[in-house]
Amino acid sequence: MNFHGGNIYEYDNNIIDFSSNINPLGVSEKLKNAIIERIDEVSIYPDINYNKLKNNISKYINVDKSMITVGNGAVDIIYRAVQNLPMNNVVIMAPTFSEYRKAAELSGKRFFEIPSFNFEKNIFDMSFFDSKIHSNSIIIICNPNNPTGVAIDKQSLTKFLKNIKDKGCFVIIDEAFMEFTCNENKFSMVDMCNEFENLIVIRAVTKFFGLPGIRLGYGISSNKIFNEAMENSSKPWDINTFAVIASAVIFNDYEYIEKSKKWIKEETEFMYENISKIKGFLPYKTNCNFMLVKSDKNSEYIEKALLKYNILIRIPKGFTGLSKNFIRVAIKDRESNIKLINALRSEFCE
Amino acid sequence: MNFHGGNIYEYDNNIIDFSSNINPLGVSEKLKNAIIERIDEVSIYPDINYNKLKNNISKYINVDKSMITVGNGAVDIIYRAVQNLPMNNVVIMAPTFSEYRKAAELSGKRFFEIPSFNFEKNIFDMSFFDSKIHSNSIIIICNPNNPTGVAIDKQSLTKFLKNIKDKGCFVIIDEAFMEFTCNENKFSMVDMCNEFENLIVIRAVTKFFGLPGIRLGYGISSNKIFNEAMENSSKPWDINTFAVIASAVIFNDYEYIEKSKKWIKEETEFMYENISKIKGFLPYKTNCNFMLVKSDKNSEYIEKALLKYNILIRIPKGFTGLSKNFIRVAIKDRESNIKLINALRSEFCE
Repeated sequence: MNFHGGNIYEYDNNIIDFSSNINPLGVSEKLKNAIIERIDEVSIYPDINYNKLKNNISKYINVDKSMITVGNGAVDIIYRAVQNLPMNNVVIMAPTFSEYRKAAELSGKRFFEIPSFNFEKNIFDMSFFDSKIHSNSIIIICNPNNPTGVAIDKQSLTKFLKNIKDKGCFVIIDEAFMEFTCNENKFSMVDMCNEFENLIVIRAVTKFFGLPGIRLGYGISSNKIFNEAMENSSKPWDINTFAVIASAVIFNDYEYIEKSKKWIKEETEFMYENISKIKGFLPYKTNCNFMLVKSDKNSEYIEKALLKYNILIRIPKGFTGLSKNFIRVAIKDRESNIKLINALRSEFCE
Repeated sequence: MNFHGGNIYEYDNNIIDFSSNINPLGVSEKLKNAIIERIDEVSIYPDINYNKLKNNISKYINVDKSMITVGNGAVDIIYRAVQNLPMNNVVIMAPTFSEYRKAAELSGKRFFEIPSFNFEKNIFDMSFFDSKIHSNSIIIICNPNNPTGVAIDKQSLTKFLKNIKDKGCFVIIDEAFMEFTCNENKFSMVDMCNEFENLIVIRAVTKFFGLPGIRLGYGISSNKIFNEAMENSSKPWDINTFAVIASAVIFNDYEYIEKSKKWIKEETEFMYENISKIKGFLPYKTNCNFMLVKSDKNSEYIEKALLKYNILIRIPKGFTGLSKNFIRVAIKDRESNIKLINALRSEFCE
């Protein structure tokens, strides 16, 4: 059974999808032009070593190419890491994205979910999480976190890494939404991968660059065990030609990047303000392009009600450790956001 | 170390690639138009159940949708099948494609290579192969076979399947090159998947439809164990949007299909005839878009010599069970084929 967002294929064609959290600016003109121009390249095999792809990523995140692993979406890297790292346990900070649990189950490793989110303060309780860590574990932290939207700062993560350094753990930080924080210096651990050799950062072009259909994720680590495990578990030509073409364009598309950052700031504030005013709905401050909202109603009831307005939202079923009184909504373009707010008002305020 | 064909990235830009065996007709206009028209779809998640993709494949090969598995290229399906089927041994018919061995090694299963090709008669000795089969094995047969180019007929394969039916084996037939035979009725086992429940047929759009960069392979089987193993081992959104778009176009592109079949017939004959005339080179009759050639020279010497003409060929390094006196050349467009023949002549006849 699938509880992911974005599964619009089960609904009417005109559904407005607040369940998946993708940049609504869509595919940039620059990328469209590059694909059209280079379309014939799909008739030759991609470079099995993905040299140019790795170079493009290396320049974008300012990390040595030798530290980069590429995958068929971030989820490919997460699954392979969990499967192949030599630890028996997988530990996550709940509530979070459900694929970590699925990866653990598939690998046969023991799965521990540590409910570390303080819903009153809207922060993760790092010292509580810290105190519960099993040694010999793969620890997965989604930062900023899905579905809470909140980001843990670099200082706290660095402290955490130091605290657990003798426990023989790998720490995977999934930064799929990092660019939306508009403050990578404060939150991203990419530049700490040289300092902590048990650290793995995972990124993707899916969310911020609005390209879930292109399937491109990447991992960053200075760890030999990890990098070798990833090389050995990769299949030849895992990444398609269009993803390679995209990497040459999107990371330098400053216009798209700036426009996206302007949009996210404006619309996050707009949504927060307006949902706050709706009786029975409590939005959480977010560092992301989605918002966790607490309600005094059951999420399945809210989901059903909004479907009458052709609006699809995300309910807690797809997450690990989230109660039924929460919904998650994407931040979209102004026009769509107004539709969501109006639907909530009509249904629950009048 | 990579010994695959098509790794033109290590060479000069103007290299003529006879090492990878891809339809030289390239990307069809219909597919180009479809991609341009539907490019915005890459900003939404693919259908996680791939319903339309499976429908398109189902119509093309005339098999029930429930029997279809999709993968990120055929190699993805092969790796996952070998990893997840409940057998301890992997048995192949040599010489053949090297990825089967790699898949076996990665899975930790025992690998048996049975040298069954009769180089004098240019056929596989099925009764020899048959007599060597270990029970409890995954048997992989590439048909038509890479690199020998020869196809085993349906009758012989059916007899083989009947003979080994009590040995508790799965039989995977990799039909990546099947459309090039121009005689699927005679060679393809797709329509036998209902009859033999231990049979798995694998196909891809890579070779015949000239789309190695799009990454789309599929498996056909009526076996529950296999189909469940494939579903459980798949990662969400394994297949990219462009592959889904392609499936709606290429299988109905009769013009492209007919043109390709006409080309392959003409050029295979042309190459066979001309290489036959070159002293010291013995081409094998082929059912495919590539040709095995025996020579009295060492293949590495031939490879080096042809690189002076900017021609890249395939040597036996990338195959299981092929001696140094063989080379494999792709069948390309007439202009390129003439260049290869002329280079061989200049280098070895004058």
